[in-house]
Amino acid sequence: MTIPSPIAWNSDHSIRILDQTLLPGAETYLDLATMDAVAEAIRTLRVRGAPLIGIAAAMGVVVALPRSGGAAEQTLLDQVRDVCRALGATRPTAVNLHWALNRMQRRAEAACAAGEDLREALIAEASAIWDEDRAMCLRIGELGASLIPSEATVCTVCNAGALATGGMGTALAPVYVAHQSGRRPHVIVPETRPLLQGSRLTAWELTRAGVPCTLIGDGMIASRLRLGDVACVIVGADRIAANGDVANKIGTYGLALAAKAHGIPFYVAAPTSTVDPATPDGSAIPIEQRASDEVATWQGARTAPVGMRVWNPAFDMTPAELITAIITDRGIFEPRDICRVERSEVAAPAIQ
Amino acid sequence: MTIPSPIAWNSDHSIRILDQTLLPGAETYLDLATMDAVAEAIRTLRVRGAPLIGIAAAMGVVVALPRSGGAAEQTLLDQVRDVCRALGATRPTAVNLHWALNRMQRRAEAACAAGEDLREALIAEASAIWDEDRAMCLRIGELGASLIPSEATVCTVCNAGALATGGMGTALAPVYVAHQSGRRPHVIVPETRPLLQGSRLTAWELTRAGVPCTLIGDGMIASRLRLGDVACVIVGADRIAANGDVANKIGTYGLALAAKAHGIPFYVAAPTSTVDPATPDGSAIPIEQRASDEVATWQGARTAPVGMRVWNPAFDMTPAELITAIITDRGIFEPRDICRVERSEVAAPAIQ
Repeated sequence: MTIPSPIAWNSDHSIRILDQTLLPGAETYLDLATMDAVAEAIRTLRVRGAPLIGIAAAMGVVVALPRSGGAAEQTLLDQVRDVCRALGATRPTAVNLHWALNRMQRRAEAACAAGEDLREALIAEASAIWDEDRAMCLRIGELGASLIPSEATVCTVCNAGALATGGMGTALAPVYVAHQSGRRPHVIVPETRPLLQGSRLTAWELTRAGVPCTLIGDGMIASRLRLGDVACVIVGADRIAANGDVANKIGTYGLALAAKAHGIPFYVAAPTSTVDPATPDGSAIPIEQRASDEVATWQGARTAPVGMRVWNPAFDMTPAELITAIITDRGIFEPRDICRVERSEVAAPAIQ
Repeated sequence: MTIPSPIAWNSDHSIRILDQTLLPGAETYLDLATMDAVAEAIRTLRVRGAPLIGIAAAMGVVVALPRSGGAAEQTLLDQVRDVCRALGATRPTAVNLHWALNRMQRRAEAACAAGEDLREALIAEASAIWDEDRAMCLRIGELGASLIPSEATVCTVCNAGALATGGMGTALAPVYVAHQSGRRPHVIVPETRPLLQGSRLTAWELTRAGVPCTLIGDGMIASRLRLGDVACVIVGADRIAANGDVANKIGTYGLALAAKAHGIPFYVAAPTSTVDPATPDGSAIPIEQRASDEVATWQGARTAPVGMRVWNPAFDMTPAELITAIITDRGIFEPRDICRVERSEVAAPAIQ
């Protein structure tokens, strides 16, 4: 099984990314050697998925720093702070982005205080964020695979797979682990308009990895779930509120309503870094509104009349009561328990 | 208010249609002068919408007949039967198609038996089907408008408007009547993948008519309904079973589940000819599966990996218990009462 990887360091610690806006037609890799290039890649979704955005932003802090030493310590720290602020403004909803940037900033402060080489320290920290994410994905996969029966059909939405993370994904990790252990899962992939992360990304990486999958339109979800053969739904999360409400790709809430109507378990798979104890419930999660042309045009051609008003939120909020369980790298939890779990994690310095 | 018209007779009684596959980019009219051209236009959705398909097929029977007399009566009747069979095979789900073709065939038989001019009789019958549809749309609009509060936001799906009928539409007719009477409705238009009849057609005709509307992706429906300002949902129907179950564009069922979850009235608007007393419930309605490339490609470019398996039903089934009421040209009914109503209609020869 070959699971594709969407990000890498070059030998000079510039960043190589798979340009996800060009999938599935072209597998094109881009080198990002400036902060602006990293910010543009995040903003335009060349790099996307909450965990991968965090990794890319952390690596972006390294890219933004001057290569040669000599600048005053305070100047460098100011630079790191400015970079973190600029990269943090690229996507408002994903909590991992801010988490990763906070972590880079604290590491910079600690390195300066200890007289360490700042660049080396930040390379190590960004690499650690990536390594930890890879390990978290694997752990989510191992835990979540226990919820997937043999030869099961699993429905997901958007892309919470390898292309969204530094490892084998979140929502797709249980599928990959089940597949690796010979349990032959089959995945229903809604195309996920407007940007088609389902058809372009999830279908692409599952096909690459040899996992059977079936593409459907987003409006087909409820009917597909009614057929009676879907064992469970597994989706990712962009932010999990303290009460277990989940912000995820627009369409998740409708999928959750359809799963409820048909008695199908609805799982959210996400690293604990996605849990935000400071957000009491879903109503407090800011929802990014994106450009109308994402819905009203297609590759430059209009699909709707000129001047059409469009409502295009990138995410929606699924209330905790529609969620059967949240699969994290630290265990499987009922939504109402997720905050208690995270609070204990918050005490661990590595998670701050 | 100018509501566009998608079909017309030419002076020689060939058919002029608006090619709906080219909207909203181009407003192109095609002349259909052979049965094959009519069948192709129906099959490829240049002409679509259950009532309009019925009208186009009826007009297609005229187009398919030889212009000059002289053929033996039985030969002509055989031709009409063959034409009706061929046109009836173009779309399996829409009951209006078969209803209109049956009506044309019976009229042909009656004309021959009475020694009338067959071509003139069939032109009159097709025109009558069209005229009756226009009147039915207006009646649905007048009845349904009573369900739309002043300045209400109404959600629909697909296109059950003027472009789907011979008049002002079914689902959109109440909106047009409310707009005409100064009640300023606003319409939420899901784009309706895979063929985007929402963005391409509904948004186009509403904009043309000056009715304010907002385009959303299909995955945004549940979130949009949660905002709390949607007064009601009104959708069309391709077939209504005897128990009130409704087959309509794929996505309708998910919309109905979301409406139920938010306590929003869910109305189906359709002429009584859409009711099929011979179909006991939704499970007996054949659901057309369409080509995978409708979902896996866009204007020739692949949106999913080559060889991707696709599930692409054109319609879904909304159970009667999710439907608040069915708005017909003969009154507004609870779904469970629809068959009783239709049974009385079936006795009327014009509806056979």
